[in-house]
Amino acid sequence: MEDDRDVREANEAFYQAFRDRDLAAMQELWAKDIEVSCVHPGWDVVFGREEVLDSWRRILANPGSPRLMASAVRVQRSAGIAVVTCHEGEAGTVPGIVATNVFVREHGRWRMLSHHAGPLASSPVRPPAETRVLN
Amino acid sequence: MEDDRDVREANEAFYQAFRDRDLAAMQELWAKDIEVSCVHPGWDVVFGREEVLDSWRRILANPGSPRLMASAVRVQRSAGIAVVTCHEGEAGTVPGIVATNVFVREHGRWRMLSHHAGPLASSPVRPPAETRVLN
Repeated sequence: MEDDRDVREANEAFYQAFRDRDLAAMQELWAKDIEVSCVHPGWDVVFGREEVLDSWRRILANPGSPRLMASAVRVQRSAGIAVVTCHEGEAGTVPGIVATNVFVREHGRWRMLSHHAGPLASSPVRPPAETRVLN
Repeated sequence: MEDDRDVREANEAFYQAFRDRDLAAMQELWAKDIEVSCVHPGWDVVFGREEVLDSWRRILANPGSPRLMASAVRVQRSAGIAVVTCHEGEAGTVPGIVATNVFVREHGRWRMLSHHAGPLASSPVRPPAETRVLN
């Protein structure tokens, strides 16, 4: 688990930027040297850095946007690439979204290459898997 | 576009295995040296090679499973990593699913590291972007 700390921090920075409505942080954490993509729940693919950041600009400017926390975080990693799966939900609620976040190593830091979030079926939802030892 | 042919072939091999109910091909195309994850539409994350292949075993054995085609395929790639976004739908229908497929280079071939599929909102769906020149 300790080995994944840097990846988990990169994942957490994404949700922190979301909760803080921090567009500058969001701009910084998405990859710059490789094309990026983003699928918001129910949306079609948003493709390309400008388009992805524009979608976030609108989401962060919307007072109705949720302030999501990540839970059930699990990490897959290899040299230069990391995939994080997690649940997303507001504090105190049952998470209703499942996400796959892909990070790539760019200039010594993990930057987001892909975010795909979609609805979790309301039932049956398996219990969060944070307590399992998987890494 | 030509440069992405190997990645597009790996992506197509995944949908071909799905349509052909070919579990052996499915076993071969998922990564072996790094942990994998899979999100079927509405499902929670399936994590780990055995669990992912078991989920596919059940899907491929179900006569009601759709025979999905990929469309609107777009590729992001870097050294050793490729992300494919696409729509999924049965032949002759409007695709109702959007997917992000992550491939990693393993022993000289592209193997699937992550598959995340979720529902596309029925409206408005943007037109397929295959005609755009993005790579």
